[in-house]
Amino acid sequence: MKHSDPRQGIDWKPDPAIPLSLFRQIEIYIREKITTGEWTAGYRLPPQRVLAQSMGVNRSTLVAALDNLIAAGMIEGRRGGGTYVSGSGWHALAHGAPPNWNEAIEEGWYYPNLPEVQLINRAEFQPGIIRLGTGELAPELMPEDAFNDILRSLSDRSRTLNYLQPQGSLELREALSDYLLTCGIHASPSAILIVSGSLQALHLISVGLLPRGSAVLLEKPSYLYSIHAFQSAGLKMNGVPMDAGGLHIPRLEDMIEGGTHQGHPSPLLYTIPSFHNPTGSVMNDARRNELMSAARAGGISILEDAAYTDLWLDMPPPLSLKARDTDGRVLHMGTLSKAVSPGLRLGWLVGPEPVIRRLADIKMQTDYGTSSLAQEAAELWFAGGYHSRHMDRLRPELRRRRDFMLELLERYFNGIAEWNKPAGGFYIWLKFTASPLSIRQLFHACLQDGVLIHPGFLYDRLDADHLRLSYAYASEEEMERGMQLLAKAARNLLES
Amino acid sequence: MKHSDPRQGIDWKPDPAIPLSLFRQIEIYIREKITTGEWTAGYRLPPQRVLAQSMGVNRSTLVAALDNLIAAGMIEGRRGGGTYVSGSGWHALAHGAPPNWNEAIEEGWYYPNLPEVQLINRAEFQPGIIRLGTGELAPELMPEDAFNDILRSLSDRSRTLNYLQPQGSLELREALSDYLLTCGIHASPSAILIVSGSLQALHLISVGLLPRGSAVLLEKPSYLYSIHAFQSAGLKMNGVPMDAGGLHIPRLEDMIEGGTHQGHPSPLLYTIPSFHNPTGSVMNDARRNELMSAARAGGISILEDAAYTDLWLDMPPPLSLKARDTDGRVLHMGTLSKAVSPGLRLGWLVGPEPVIRRLADIKMQTDYGTSSLAQEAAELWFAGGYHSRHMDRLRPELRRRRDFMLELLERYFNGIAEWNKPAGGFYIWLKFTASPLSIRQLFHACLQDGVLIHPGFLYDRLDADHLRLSYAYASEEEMERGMQLLAKAARNLLES
Repeated sequence: MKHSDPRQGIDWKPDPAIPLSLFRQIEIYIREKITTGEWTAGYRLPPQRVLAQSMGVNRSTLVAALDNLIAAGMIEGRRGGGTYVSGSGWHALAHGAPPNWNEAIEEGWYYPNLPEVQLINRAEFQPGIIRLGTGELAPELMPEDAFNDILRSLSDRSRTLNYLQPQGSLELREALSDYLLTCGIHASPSAILIVSGSLQALHLISVGLLPRGSAVLLEKPSYLYSIHAFQSAGLKMNGVPMDAGGLHIPRLEDMIEGGTHQGHPSPLLYTIPSFHNPTGSVMNDARRNELMSAARAGGISILEDAAYTDLWLDMPPPLSLKARDTDGRVLHMGTLSKAVSPGLRLGWLVGPEPVIRRLADIKMQTDYGTSSLAQEAAELWFAGGYHSRHMDRLRPELRRRRDFMLELLERYFNGIAEWNKPAGGFYIWLKFTASPLSIRQLFHACLQDGVLIHPGFLYDRLDADHLRLSYAYASEEEMERGMQLLAKAARNLLES
Repeated sequence: MKHSDPRQGIDWKPDPAIPLSLFRQIEIYIREKITTGEWTAGYRLPPQRVLAQSMGVNRSTLVAALDNLIAAGMIEGRRGGGTYVSGSGWHALAHGAPPNWNEAIEEGWYYPNLPEVQLINRAEFQPGIIRLGTGELAPELMPEDAFNDILRSLSDRSRTLNYLQPQGSLELREALSDYLLTCGIHASPSAILIVSGSLQALHLISVGLLPRGSAVLLEKPSYLYSIHAFQSAGLKMNGVPMDAGGLHIPRLEDMIEGGTHQGHPSPLLYTIPSFHNPTGSVMNDARRNELMSAARAGGISILEDAAYTDLWLDMPPPLSLKARDTDGRVLHMGTLSKAVSPGLRLGWLVGPEPVIRRLADIKMQTDYGTSSLAQEAAELWFAGGYHSRHMDRLRPELRRRRDFMLELLERYFNGIAEWNKPAGGFYIWLKFTASPLSIRQLFHACLQDGVLIHPGFLYDRLDADHLRLSYAYASEEEMERGMQLLAKAARNLLES
């Protein structure tokens, strides 16, 4: 347990080695939380059961500490249950009206993450949890040695610790320009913006290029439905259906003509053409050409998310949309988060120079640039040839894991579900065919068993029968055990 | 010249060593810019004079290339001047309607930087420019050797390349908790959020804690007026006047009572109590206590920006507001950008746990956390004792520079201006007393002479007679020359 949360206990335990009784230690700990203002007036303490468990003490020990604090007027029980930091009494006497942060938290306009996403973000750090849906490489697949190499090289050279140029380090943009050329994309350094991960690129685009109230077209389902980058900027999302070859072009054309895009002069289509998140599908070559024609005819621009492109397992995907773009219609984003290191937070956006400059200006106002250390490391990553060597090593590993998960699916899910065989990326889009089954119930049942899954409704609010599985994170042992538990939980729910 | 801009030429030159005439090389270069869509239809090329100069060619060579491109229909001259990428003709024939990025750029709702700020951001990278206002340490004052040490240590240890916890690495938060204790601030790791620089903390607070349309109280002048973090989130800014001791408390109380804060339940006051940006002033001890009382009485919360606190030169400033806070009323932000490394992009925010958790959730949606490399380096920076050793070495250096700039002011500005003697931080708030003088004209005149200054109106829209000077960046030789040129330009303007 790494951070405290009402539902999750706290990250502190009394120490039996200290010559002070456990309940006194607890009392002092909570008193300090309150007097330092880390727990403000009205803060609800975690339930006694959770608190006692996370502190590793008997409930009676905890209660002794809480009773003393209640007697001191620092906390109070409330009708209907729950223990709260006192809002009047002790606090008010000592300090006047306490600050009303709860109201402030509710009034900020940025959407909170979906409750399930918040739960997933936290559960991922629970020790022992099996992560069957995580969109991230397992630690053992990451290039730790290569990074140590790179850090050693960096420690030998001189560097600027100062702010970098608004678009990011020129050396890195030059290295990326060379890398992109190997992907068929001509991009000068001046047409590249370095970002702190592609989520930031989405954020910059949403506030820098799209008027509030305008609509974004996107695949349905889509990863983009699981985050609020666009909605928090006041944008609407119009889902376009997919088939096995990718985006359904006639439906897209209907939506463009029908003006579903609310009259914005140049509506934007967000798409993940290669190894789509969450479906794993690949837009085929013909479909890509049709999409480019439809975009030209309909006057729309495209945001191509190439996060998974390098992660092909059987053969490289068709040429990217940006490589087919001749009039600056496509913005192309890439990232090191999927194939290399999520924690590094490094991505890039390619587009027409005026667009890149506008977004660089906003980025300067948001975080004043991406960390120079991360940029230096990324520069060596590409310029030093680490990237292609790493991909060559990674692919067979990931292929083995994919094949193993497909084997497990055959073994445990025959008759109750169907699935695709992805040619790359991380994801299998599992569909339960033996409905009705509550995916929400399944999610919570699995969590009880220590298995973390990603419900399909994260990617399409109305979806009722999918899960996103990932073979990138869990070890084979974990996959085996997790898939067994998942199948069992599903069959239990189907039978009840 | 590091990045291209209509007003600044481009970052490419034809190469005389290539067996192809210069004008053909230029023609091919521009043709490629257009066919790759980096220069989209309607893009305005830099003026011929600027373009020829930045390419290092005669204007006639450039014109020969442009003529060929005009003949090919790829670019066109327009009435009223200027050369543009063709919007119809070649483009339309080949591709249908071009994407309308210009409109998109204007419709995004995030404010662009002020024109002068954009100009400053660019001019800072002009070779040879003397930066007299830059709020950043000179490269030679930064701890390059210490960072190489840290990188070497990092290269020997194993690390996670995966995503970190939403609030940031626990090890770094523990190191910061220890560091903050030395500043008199009790903050558990669970009450700390790691951010990518304090600008990001402002951004998170503006969208996560403050309803659109609410007002933020702040010192006038203030650094915060020079950026749009708060305005872009739809917030109003109400400036509170200052005197030599800091914020004017009776005026603040009037504003709170008068409801200038628009009825928001818990209005926020942003303040830089120590070595204020741009005035360099320090809120005295008594004033800090008065402010805390006024905040309690008026029910307001405080955002304390401690960016410059460690940069005291004569003696440490009074205890921070957060160290005086007993009911979680103060959010406290700190950063490595001012005293250590701006490029690292690492800062922290301390506050009540529910506030920190809410902002961590938004941060996860904005950039999915701060770069793990930057967090690892910062952890070693504090835990390895580098910070205090660096500050001990830095102070005498910075003190020398401050004293030298004060000497130059005596020498060149007597009779036309007055100034403070800052006890720390970077800034001198220079006031021209021999008005009227157009600071905007002075800014541009200095830029012509290769001297970059920061006009006072960046920090207070109505200010007409101040400059923010910084002794942190320019070398002594540059300061001497720059201050001479500045004084000359000012006297010229005063005489004309």
